[in-house]
Amino acid sequence: MTTQRPRIIIIGAGFGGLAVVNKLHRHDVDILLIDRNNFHTFTPLLYQVATCALDPSEIAYPVRGIYRKNRNVSFLLGEVIAIHPHEKRITVKTNGTTLDQSYDYLVIATGSVINFFGNDSIEQFAFGLKNLQDTLILRNHILKLFEKATWTKDSIERDAMTTMVVVGGGPTGLETAGALYELYNHVLSREYNRANAIRARVVLVEASNTLLTPYPDRLRELARKQLESLGVEVILGKAVQKMEKNRVILVDGEVIHTHTLVWSAGVKGSPVARMLGVELARGDRIPVKPTMEVIGLDDVYAAGDITYILDKSGQPYAQVITVAQQQGKLVAKNIINRLNDKPQAEFVYFDKGIMATIGRRRAVAYPFNKVQLSGFFAWITWLGLHLIWLMGFRNRINVFVNWVWNYLTYDRSVRIILDETKPQSG
Amino acid sequence: MTTQRPRIIIIGAGFGGLAVVNKLHRHDVDILLIDRNNFHTFTPLLYQVATCALDPSEIAYPVRGIYRKNRNVSFLLGEVIAIHPHEKRITVKTNGTTLDQSYDYLVIATGSVINFFGNDSIEQFAFGLKNLQDTLILRNHILKLFEKATWTKDSIERDAMTTMVVVGGGPTGLETAGALYELYNHVLSREYNRANAIRARVVLVEASNTLLTPYPDRLRELARKQLESLGVEVILGKAVQKMEKNRVILVDGEVIHTHTLVWSAGVKGSPVARMLGVELARGDRIPVKPTMEVIGLDDVYAAGDITYILDKSGQPYAQVITVAQQQGKLVAKNIINRLNDKPQAEFVYFDKGIMATIGRRRAVAYPFNKVQLSGFFAWITWLGLHLIWLMGFRNRINVFVNWVWNYLTYDRSVRIILDETKPQSG
Repeated sequence: MTTQRPRIIIIGAGFGGLAVVNKLHRHDVDILLIDRNNFHTFTPLLYQVATCALDPSEIAYPVRGIYRKNRNVSFLLGEVIAIHPHEKRITVKTNGTTLDQSYDYLVIATGSVINFFGNDSIEQFAFGLKNLQDTLILRNHILKLFEKATWTKDSIERDAMTTMVVVGGGPTGLETAGALYELYNHVLSREYNRANAIRARVVLVEASNTLLTPYPDRLRELARKQLESLGVEVILGKAVQKMEKNRVILVDGEVIHTHTLVWSAGVKGSPVARMLGVELARGDRIPVKPTMEVIGLDDVYAAGDITYILDKSGQPYAQVITVAQQQGKLVAKNIINRLNDKPQAEFVYFDKGIMATIGRRRAVAYPFNKVQLSGFFAWITWLGLHLIWLMGFRNRINVFVNWVWNYLTYDRSVRIILDETKPQSG
Repeated sequence: MTTQRPRIIIIGAGFGGLAVVNKLHRHDVDILLIDRNNFHTFTPLLYQVATCALDPSEIAYPVRGIYRKNRNVSFLLGEVIAIHPHEKRITVKTNGTTLDQSYDYLVIATGSVINFFGNDSIEQFAFGLKNLQDTLILRNHILKLFEKATWTKDSIERDAMTTMVVVGGGPTGLETAGALYELYNHVLSREYNRANAIRARVVLVEASNTLLTPYPDRLRELARKQLESLGVEVILGKAVQKMEKNRVILVDGEVIHTHTLVWSAGVKGSPVARMLGVELARGDRIPVKPTMEVIGLDDVYAAGDITYILDKSGQPYAQVITVAQQQGKLVAKNIINRLNDKPQAEFVYFDKGIMATIGRRRAVAYPFNKVQLSGFFAWITWLGLHLIWLMGFRNRINVFVNWVWNYLTYDRSVRIILDETKPQSG
């Protein structure tokens, strides 16, 4: 260690990375936060951007803005392309050049990416919902198809344009399927005044025999019922075999004619994990000690979706936000412990429970894994928690008011098709 | 004319086109509105999107939403690629196919596009501010350069990254220059906490000897003073000769090192004008009779920036919104007159005056060409008028509150760099 202040580099400005910074910045250290976007994304609400209920900027927070008052926190917009743990150095590609940056401690918090499980046909045609760019690509796609459908006379072609398949029976899949159904059949169809009515079909496909696997049986059943009463078709026990340009084929041969498949059936660790040169666990995740130190390296920690660490029942921790945040806090604590020659603490997860919405007024929730909530009351709980989360970033009363108003009335102008990098010439 | 309801096709959902629809839809006609975007853009505030004060969706209004309750108004998302006036038919390219549409009356309201006056080097490197796509490309460019500048040690290189040149001394140029200056020196620089301060240089270049040519002398001088007191450099009497990747060269050889040139020095008629097969006037504008009928064609009207019609002093009407709106109203009136076998009315322009803002609390205004306003009071007038305009589209109290709050505090999260069509893989 040098006689200067210790330099800590954190790669990734997601929930894990920010949790590290938030706990670390009050200490006498220099922090460099790196992300390939200049903003943090509030990912639980990505599906609302995809379904035109929210605007990108309402769930994207410029990182510089968050840490404006913290003089010891610097931000670098760039992509890490190499890590040299034995030289305590990383290489970052940033806007046309590459930079090398040295560290005393390194934190990997780059999260997870979509896992297509090696299925190339799906990877070629499917849409993801992991980040804001994906989300806007999906939104533009849906809106363009709607416009095309309004002018298509052939009803079979038209149905393929207004059929959407969501793969994955976890909270993201459910929330997306419900929101897509409402977008089409409650919002877009109102704006279509030609003779032929446009009705969308939304199909949720899950390979296992149940939705929301970690939830209690009763809530799982309720979730399915609520989804179906909304109008979404639920197919359980079948996986997707392959996709062509306008058809999805399930393993038993069933064919669904669609131009839109949204894949939320699995994730794997971000490619940055491979740059460490250590052996990765299943799903490309980095094995860490209970102290969150990366096994096999010195002075390198990790937090969040990218880590592989077993809970008391011998299962790897779920790749969810609350785990990332608690791990991030522990990383910060343990770096401070190192600096003060104190022993490392071990990860203890405080499970606050799980929840998922179904459409705009229904939900299931299992707070603290003790109470089972469902229906409108669960949805109110979800709303309140999201408000607290949102407010935690900034004092944005006006954003909240705007959001609630538009959420309840669904009167949004975010139904615009905008390709931000394609210039519109003459 | 057929025994069905008359079919009127309006190409362009800008201010002119919407003015036609708004007056026409109450009558017993079928209206087809065509635009290559599914939204109308409130163009006066584009420069605010470019300078991170507003979000795209706050100035983009889905056309279908505007006319949702009007059963005789249909919308087609597409680009007109051919007009056959003698067959009363147009050809539209829409999402991969082409459609033909017949009309009883046609209205061309496709507006204007950037005019580089044949200067290829400028066209290659310059940014425009004519539409939302251009604006987001410019915004992303500015923010990426800022990020790069924060990590550039060479001060000469860094200065080129934080120098911006705006060409054109009309309201758009002034507003853009002032807003860019404030974005950099009041907003972005606050978020930069490394040792070297970042200060931007904004240069407004105008080829003639004065800014805001149609304004009274006193206001022109005030505008220049206000801009300079803000910190913008004003160069008059020099045109831009050419641009290279990171230099702008003026006609007298003066070189400005910059990566950003915003061109707002001229417009010309949209290419749709050429599809009519009539001879166009200067600036690619369609010559129209005082009734707004296109000279040389039957049953074809035009309104807005794309028209060429002389005012009382023998000058073509300015390409501004109020002219477009009043011409659009007249087009609608005259189509109704045709349907009722009444004579055509002629265009009489009611000049409500002009105004331009300089930065966020200054402006010059010349309402009804009678009163000269400047400074904060003019700015309040501008604010009030924009509110009325915005409210005219929808009852959006919450949007207005949000907008004013953020406008005054400049606390926006729209400082995000987002390429909507580039997926972020792995």
